[in-house]
Amino acid sequence: MPIAPMLSVRRGAQAVKFYKAAFAAAEAFKIEAPDGAVVARLEAAGSEFWVSDESPAHANFSPETLGGSTARMVLVVPDPDAAFARAVAAGASPISPVTDQPYGWRVGRVADPFGHHWEIGKPL
Amino acid sequence: MPIAPMLSVRRGAQAVKFYKAAFAAAEAFKIEAPDGAVVARLEAAGSEFWVSDESPAHANFSPETLGGSTARMVLVVPDPDAAFARAVAAGASPISPVTDQPYGWRVGRVADPFGHHWEIGKPL
Repeated sequence: MPIAPMLSVRRGAQAVKFYKAAFAAAEAFKIEAPDGAVVARLEAAGSEFWVSDESPAHANFSPETLGGSTARMVLVVPDPDAAFARAVAAGASPISPVTDQPYGWRVGRVADPFGHHWEIGKPL
Repeated sequence: MPIAPMLSVRRGAQAVKFYKAAFAAAEAFKIEAPDGAVVARLEAAGSEFWVSDESPAHANFSPETLGGSTARMVLVVPDPDAAFARAVAAGASPISPVTDQPYGWRVGRVADPFGHHWEIGKPL
């Protein structure tokens, strides 16, 4: 995929486990440094994204470090209600329930345990 | 595309112009609120991403507000050197020049004028 986001997190190894459970993601690639820091490429719903332990010295900050996130992920799935429920069951926090929006999407929003936000929806 | 990042920025209308120039992005969708705030979906290199004006009240923070970014974009292109040069010519700041990396990629990194970081490269 020509553009793939790389999410900076704390506890990268745990984050990879979470994303697998929450979004049915498959691990396409993973390297683990001797100190436990992880860089992984995951695939979910046919798209790729990366997860890596933060490295503030290299300007890679986790949401926990900055107190918020500067990009959210828009995840388009056939059944947003089921995907939202699965993410919450895996440990994500509901931010907005799945509802029909006036702009023609059915969408909800969760925050994952690492501080990244996901909009889970589909065009109506 | 099932997963697309939505980048929060200040000066969203300017950001859309920048991404068009820097990454040859096409505007697939744009709405502009009466106050000038923008939500746009762009397509570059066959992938989609979103750009929207930040809204800290809704937990959408720009890198300028937080002092860093929590996700970087990995842009895979056939000619990273040319794409890097184009982004810099459009106003991006070089962070790391395009070089061959030991993990088998030719890649460089820029920061855009809105604080988001892009890794521009390809597997060797």
